[in-house]
Parts: sequence; structure tokens; C-alpha cells
Amino acid sequence: MNLSHVFLARQRIAPFVRRTPLVHSPGLSAQTGVHVRLKLESLQVSNSFKARGAFNVAAARLERHAGQPAQEDLLVTASAGNHGRALAHAAARLGVRLVVFTPANAPRAKLDHIARHGADLRAVAPTYEDAERMAKEYASRSRVTYISPYSHPDVIAGAATVALEIIEDWPSVETIIVPVGGGGLISGIAVAARAVSPDIEVLGVEADASPAFFTSLAAGCITEVDVRPTIADGLAGNMDPDTITFDLVKRFVTRVLLVPERSIEEAVRALVSLDHVIAEGAGAVGVAALLEGAKTRGRNVAVVISGSNIDTGRLAALIGTSG
Amino acid sequence: MNLSHVFLARQRIAPFVRRTPLVHSPGLSAQTGVHVRLKLESLQVSNSFKARGAFNVAAARLERHAGQPAQEDLLVTASAGNHGRALAHAAARLGVRLVVFTPANAPRAKLDHIARHGADLRAVAPTYEDAERMAKEYASRSRVTYISPYSHPDVIAGAATVALEIIEDWPSVETIIVPVGGGGLISGIAVAARAVSPDIEVLGVEADASPAFFTSLAAGCITEVDVRPTIADGLAGNMDPDTITFDLVKRFVTRVLLVPERSIEEAVRALVSLDHVIAEGAGAVGVAALLEGAKTRGRNVAVVISGSNIDTGRLAALIGTSG
Repeated sequence: MNLSHVFLARQRIAPFVRRTPLVHSPGLSAQTGVHVRLKLESLQVSNSFKARGAFNVAAARLERHAGQPAQEDLLVTASAGNHGRALAHAAARLGVRLVVFTPANAPRAKLDHIARHGADLRAVAPTYEDAERMAKEYASRSRVTYISPYSHPDVIAGAATVALEIIEDWPSVETIIVPVGGGGLISGIAVAARAVSPDIEVLGVEADASPAFFTSLAAGCITEVDVRPTIADGLAGNMDPDTITFDLVKRFVTRVLLVPERSIEEAVRALVSLDHVIAEGAGAVGVAALLEGAKTRGRNVAVVISGSNIDTGRLAALIGTSG
Repeated sequence: MNLSHVFLARQRIAPFVRRTPLVHSPGLSAQTGVHVRLKLESLQVSNSFKARGAFNVAAARLERHAGQPAQEDLLVTASAGNHGRALAHAAARLGVRLVVFTPANAPRAKLDHIARHGADLRAVAPTYEDAERMAKEYASRSRVTYISPYSHPDVIAGAATVALEIIEDWPSVETIIVPVGGGGLISGIAVAARAVSPDIEVLGVEADASPAFFTSLAAGCITEVDVRPTIADGLAGNMDPDTITFDLVKRFVTRVLLVPERSIEEAVRALVSLDHVIAEGAGAVGVAALLEGAKTRGRNVAVVISGSNIDTGRLAALIGTSG
């Protein structure tokens, strides 16, 4: 993948997604001693960055079919929730049928939206990895296309448009901090940032309850990890053993950090109280890393707030306690 | 005031304020049957639209002093909180000294920021009207300039830039719904919208705990009302008897609606659960009016979410209950 794929993705998805704001956080800047700006993909269509990859996938398929979805056209995907919601939205908008496999315990806020967009929702898997396995088996049995939520060039190129916007809005950005689940977002951002300027540092952040990239990078190869429950549900799970994101992260990402649960919860609270921004756990791990004292190479630090699909009751409970 | 003042204001404040997003709300659109977009001044610098007027006032003063604040330059203002915070920010940034009178019971979230920007904060008045009276007396005694938070041409022209952005981003907008306190925001929006297109309907919304404009419009002249406590603290209080906003609202605003407390609370909750947007009570009254079934002339409805300075504990309590 190179920058021309990212420009193509941007052109394809422009009618469907938002150019989200990059806002200065005076509170987090004061607390951390660096200049912090937040890239609010929490305000993206479908309330997560996943809309970018999803619309790029769906629009690219339509291009191949000359603007008409083929009668038999059916996509299958697996998702912790946000990718499924975004792809369901894009598929409905562009007239493509979709089957989505998710963990049974994914947040209601996410599952309800998948069903509402008319996708065939199968929320039955015990874990994210099981959902992925079931989706791939279903696709191969039915001879239809499996769309990985992270290991797919159109998904990654769509996610990479986040980096273009950050750098255009803030040409002097020095460090970009990015949540890491399957690695699609950070792969796209790192490829695009590297193409624009090799000096931009890209840091990844995982929940330490699900340290798939941290462990695999240390081992030098994809390594299975134990996954514990985490408030960053959108990041939980092992990566697909065939994923293309592992090599991209290994090549282009400066390092991947782990943050504990307590610090992710504190980050969700800090975003509400300091910046009046709602983020889900997965969306707040970049802020958690800063609150944990993560060192950045530069002083101009953009933090990607990747999504805001958190159940309201859970948010109320979180911000109602003071740590 | 005319549109050229608004263009001048926009140019003056551009380096200091954000062009805030105008985002489609699928949830509110489904609930109301009209196409609803939210103008997120809740994400403005200082977390309210007040930054626009404040920077316009401060920058206009610097222009008159040829870029140098006069040694003896001192401004005095009164505020329910947001204007004071925004003007303190602008004054600090541009090197102007400021005294701010507020009600003693204004939210901590607002008062802390005023003090943090180095303004001389006097949070001693029993009510908003008392704060206004004290500020005017102080200004006249000390022979310095009193800046009304709403009845000042530079404040109104700054606020009017909100309308320019809405109409540029959505040329087919038919109705704009705006919170009404002292009437500065809605005066600016109505003047600008009227200049661009006389067909755009501008609706104002007050808390029925503080129905100053509703009552005065019905009476045909400024009429004092009883003010009860309201979660829309930013809107509470009688207007200055000399305000220029009353005539502007009478001429250009289609009508002013009242919303009950319960409905404002429900609007704050709906913004969190449907759109993942944090708003203070005053910022949510436009959504409250829609939830109450307010009829609009058009189907393309922009709602100004004017601010998000709500204490976190109060927000947690609000969204933790389900109405």
C-alpha cells in the first residue's frame, strides 16, 4: 500500500464520511507538558473511524461492478462491534448485502446499530477470535467475500485518511498516538505519515488485558496471547494469523505501549471532564498512555480518539466515580 | 448591525476560534421526522460560542489601540459563567485586564476557568441581574468600559459568525433553533440569516423557569419576570432594560418557545445517548424544543448546541437516571 491508495480512498469516501475536527486540549496539555490535540473520530459517521474503511470497501466493490451491486453480491465480516456497525451502514447506503459475526457479549450500543442497518447479525461467538473464525468459514462455505475488519487493503487505506487530515490540519505535528486492536488504523496512519514525513513518530497503544501486538513484536512473530476482559472491548482479541497489519506495524510504528484498565477508565473520565468529549474505552487508550507518562519524541502530539460507542449506563457509572 | 460587521468579526476572530462541525443526528432525525443537524459550539474554544464574541471584543479594542493594549486598559463584564470564561481567555491571550462579576452560585466548571485565565473574579452576586448591576456600577465608578455579555455590537457580530458557518456548510438549511438567554446569540444569528436569505426561519428557546423574552415579546416591551432555578443556568436572568437585543429579536426572530426542566434534562441525556455529545443545560434547549414536538417551517433543521460547561458530577447524575 502507498499514498496513492490513500488519496484514492479519500476521494471515494468523501461523500459519506466527515472530516473530523482536530481540537487542542488545554487540560491535557497542562497535565502532560506537551501540546496535545485530539482527532475526534468519536464524531465520525457511525461514531468511529471504522466508517472510513467501510465506505472504502463498499464503494470500491461498486466501482468494480460498474456502479451496480451484483445480484449475488454478499459480504461477510467479523467485528468487535464498530467495524460491523460501520460496514452495515455503508452496505445499506450502497445496496450491498452483509452478514456480521460478533462476540455475543459486544456492547448493546454497537449491536443495535448493526441490526438497525439491516445487516444479518450473528452475535453468537464466545470471543472475538471465534467470531472471526466463524465469519471466515461461512465465507468459504458460501463462496462469498470475507472482509477482515483490519487486514484488508481497502480498510487500511480508508483508515489512513485520518493521518492525511491530521497532518494537513497540523503540519508541525511530531507524534501521533493511535489505539491498536487488529492494527488496521495504526497501519494506515503509519504508512501515510511515513510517506509524508519520515520524522513523524507513530506510537500504538494496547490494553494490557489484550497485548497481542506488544507480545508479538517482542517475540518477532505473531504470538497468541491470553485475552482478559477490558473496558476497551473494541481492541480485545488475538490477531488473525494471516494479518498483513503485523508486518506494517513492525516496519513503520515506533513502538506499542500497554495501558492498565484503571488508566483507561481515568482517560474516559478525563476526556469528559477536561474536554467534554465522549470516548469509548478503546478510543481513550491514547490519552491513557499520556496520563501514564508515556514519553514522546516531539512536543506536538496528536491523539486519535477512535470511537465513542459506549453504553450510556457504563459511561454514567464511570464518570460518576472519581477514580 | 449588518452582514459586513459579521464578515469583519469572522476575519478578526479566525486565528483564535474554531470552525465547529455541523453534524447530522440520525437518532434525533428519526425521532422528530425532520432532518436534524447539530452545530457543535460545545466544542468551541472555551467550550461555548461565547469565545466568538469575546475575541471580537478584545481584538477590536487592540485595533483601536494600534495593536498595543493601553496601560490603563481595563474591561469589566458580568456573566452567568461562559461569557466570563471566554472573555477571560481572550483578554489573557491579547493582554487586556479584566474584572468579571458572576452569581455566587455559578457552576464550578465555569468559575474555575475564569480565575485560571487570570481575570479578577468577583463571584458574589445573589443573582445574575445583581452581577450585571454590580459590574455596571463598578465600570461607571472606575471610568472603564463595561462589556455586556449580549448587548454589545462586537459580541453580537461575533456570535453571528455561527450563522455564516451553518449556512455555508448547509445551504439548504430552512430552520435554525437557538438557545436564548440575554439574546446576543440569537440576535446575531437572526441578523446574519436574514441578510443571507429572508426565508430562513430562526426559532428561539428559553427555559420556562426564566421566560424573559417570551414574556416581553407577548407584552410588546421588556418586562421583568420571576426567575426560578434551572439546569439551563447559562440562560437564567432578566435582560438588561437597555439591551439592544430585544428589538433585534422582535424584528428578526420567528418566535421564542419555552421548554420545561424535565425536557431539558431529557435533551442532555438524548444528546449523550444518541449523538455522544456533551451539552450543558443551556446548550440543550434547542433539542428539548424538538423533543417537545416544536413545529418547524422547514424540514432541514439546524440546532445550535451552544455550550458544554456542565459539572461532571451533575452530568453523571443526569445520564445515570433514565428520565
